[in-house]
Amino acid sequence: MAFYVQKFGGTSVGSVERIDAVANRVAGFVRGGDRVVVVVSAMSGETNRLEALGGEVLRGHPSETQAREMDVLLSAGEQASIALVAMALTRQGCPARSYLGDQVRIRTDANHMKARIESIDTECLLADLDRGVTPVVAGFQGMNESGDITTFGRGASDTTAVAVAAALGVDECRIYTDVPGVFTADPRIVPDARRLDSVTFEEMLELASLGSKVLHARSVEFVGKYGVPMRVLSSFEEGLGTLVTTEDQDMEQPVVSAIAHTRDEAKLTVQGVPDVPGVASRILGPVGEASIEVDMIVQNVGADGLADFTFTVRRADYERAREIVESVQGELEARAVTGDDRIAKVSAVGVGMRSHAGVATRMFDALAAKNINILMISTSEIKISVVVDEHSLEAAVNAIHDAFELGADATA
Amino acid sequence: MAFYVQKFGGTSVGSVERIDAVANRVAGFVRGGDRVVVVVSAMSGETNRLEALGGEVLRGHPSETQAREMDVLLSAGEQASIALVAMALTRQGCPARSYLGDQVRIRTDANHMKARIESIDTECLLADLDRGVTPVVAGFQGMNESGDITTFGRGASDTTAVAVAAALGVDECRIYTDVPGVFTADPRIVPDARRLDSVTFEEMLELASLGSKVLHARSVEFVGKYGVPMRVLSSFEEGLGTLVTTEDQDMEQPVVSAIAHTRDEAKLTVQGVPDVPGVASRILGPVGEASIEVDMIVQNVGADGLADFTFTVRRADYERAREIVESVQGELEARAVTGDDRIAKVSAVGVGMRSHAGVATRMFDALAAKNINILMISTSEIKISVVVDEHSLEAAVNAIHDAFELGADATA
Repeated sequence: MAFYVQKFGGTSVGSVERIDAVANRVAGFVRGGDRVVVVVSAMSGETNRLEALGGEVLRGHPSETQAREMDVLLSAGEQASIALVAMALTRQGCPARSYLGDQVRIRTDANHMKARIESIDTECLLADLDRGVTPVVAGFQGMNESGDITTFGRGASDTTAVAVAAALGVDECRIYTDVPGVFTADPRIVPDARRLDSVTFEEMLELASLGSKVLHARSVEFVGKYGVPMRVLSSFEEGLGTLVTTEDQDMEQPVVSAIAHTRDEAKLTVQGVPDVPGVASRILGPVGEASIEVDMIVQNVGADGLADFTFTVRRADYERAREIVESVQGELEARAVTGDDRIAKVSAVGVGMRSHAGVATRMFDALAAKNINILMISTSEIKISVVVDEHSLEAAVNAIHDAFELGADATA
Repeated sequence: MAFYVQKFGGTSVGSVERIDAVANRVAGFVRGGDRVVVVVSAMSGETNRLEALGGEVLRGHPSETQAREMDVLLSAGEQASIALVAMALTRQGCPARSYLGDQVRIRTDANHMKARIESIDTECLLADLDRGVTPVVAGFQGMNESGDITTFGRGASDTTAVAVAAALGVDECRIYTDVPGVFTADPRIVPDARRLDSVTFEEMLELASLGSKVLHARSVEFVGKYGVPMRVLSSFEEGLGTLVTTEDQDMEQPVVSAIAHTRDEAKLTVQGVPDVPGVASRILGPVGEASIEVDMIVQNVGADGLADFTFTVRRADYERAREIVESVQGELEARAVTGDDRIAKVSAVGVGMRSHAGVATRMFDALAAKNINILMISTSEIKISVVVDEHSLEAAVNAIHDAFELGADATA
């Protein structure tokens, strides 16, 4: 008998049939004697639909003053799905009760559309469990001090799940998704990619923020912060999934655990700017103010004392970012602004990297052997990322996956 | 400068364009110096969509234990529309703020799906108005003592509007609909039907419950109870609409103000039941328990001491009602159960009827002159209803409309 938080994403509750399947799965655990708190996202497509409606009314992105209403709008999606899942559970003989963010008192800070959870009141959840009722909690939403609805950013229902799991001290927070776990690379690109039995939360954090869409990055931070064991597994098939842990399970970690990639990248270069303090912030300041997220940043100084400053943004933000940078070009006395919106990023991630030299070399050699040109390089303690031409993406992922012997054959 | 509640139904907020038009209209009043509290329904089709999803998950109608979740589900519709209307108002330079039922503390009793409003806390609304912010309140929903979401029944956003209007003591509660007011008859059936400048709330109550879909019956009760002046008018065109008043505006009331009709009726007759106490409740008890609404009830006793007991239900409930009645037929020792699901009801309504004799005769004569057979008759203080064959409906409405000289020509 175990105590679980079980979180189901939008695809898992995307139709009445799937909601029934979720209820059936949860009811199986409850009948077996487990205690389960369910967390659900909005039905797939629903948040997109609401967001599009909001965008149409606003004629664009919500301003600060409109963010409160955007949160009221977006949080309606989970309201429908928790009711439907609770109804399906009750119908299947497993009494259930839905909770909105404010009803389970998920208190957050005041930042609309990107609020952070401050506290959760678990009293009603525990009271339900004690009388045999399974609580179904809305992901993605909470309430600020003024009683206004707040949301945590797209995909953040995972964060609700882990926060509830931490507050309850459950045995395991299970994130049910449409994939059977975390893989050494995207199996659609690398045919012999392998499911990992476990990853550390630090690796998972790099993988999540690198575009491996399995988990929301903030939820992974919670695993590290509160030590909640989290397991990623499939809603649709049986299997153990992947355990995200706080500690190295084995003394001997593989140097590289997985290869992540993101496709929708673009880069902008400001050429020939004076290499003086403050240049970076004068370029990136206005970009940040426009709510454009900047990923990699690289600067090189040439022999003439002038620097080339390059950064990457999401492809959807490319045109806007380019306009902003071009508008400050004159003020910076830069020679030119160039850009490329057909690039992709490939990253090797692994905690074992810390104690091993030569990882970068092995990665670069593998790319060179396939004649793939590296456009940018960026490294962190447990990650090496390279930017390549978009058309080289698949070859690059496969080359690096092979170089670190991550495939199914390699372990056989 | 006036103080209004302005309520917009689902059709009026059914698309982004219409939401913009609603915001434009409200903003016009606010710019002119009026104080406005907006009440909105869910976007048209949305509550139906959610209700259908709930029905699919439940495989039928919600039981008592599922009604709490059904309310969570259904109330999500208004949550989206209040946010969108508030966003549109703010975008048009008229700062606005949305309120869910629980945020404006619309406290109700514990009856899910048919809750009644007990109190409204107007403090936040008045504070908003004082600082130039237009509140946008979700219709149809409130919160019970336990903090659970409750709803008031389909179409009950009008009730929210009138209750908020009563609590605030506004000058007028304006109900914007897809028709330009209350008519002497349905203009689609009676070409010379006339818009009424005013009706009494008692007349409106009969018209609302008789199938004139303009207003929700409960909202009209509030007009009588709290003396809130209410005006029904079109969202889409200019015009004065119809004022629903608590008092007779003129000393001299017309005998009949309007002719209402309902099309989707069915009747069931239990023939030859003993005329003893308790028969009616033994027939209607199980029908009511199945949540089937009974409208007209007529009983006649024949010479043999056996009674024919007839009642009408909505056509959608006919088959279920018939099964229920047939299941108690033996116990009642009734001779037969017969039914007809192709009937319609026509009613003449007018407060002037109280002081005038001969109204029924004039109505029946008009029908006889057109050779229309009357299947059932039912009367109240200010209303006479007849049931006719569905195919006679249009002729019956026109005949009675003419008989009481309600047409545009008659007043010219």
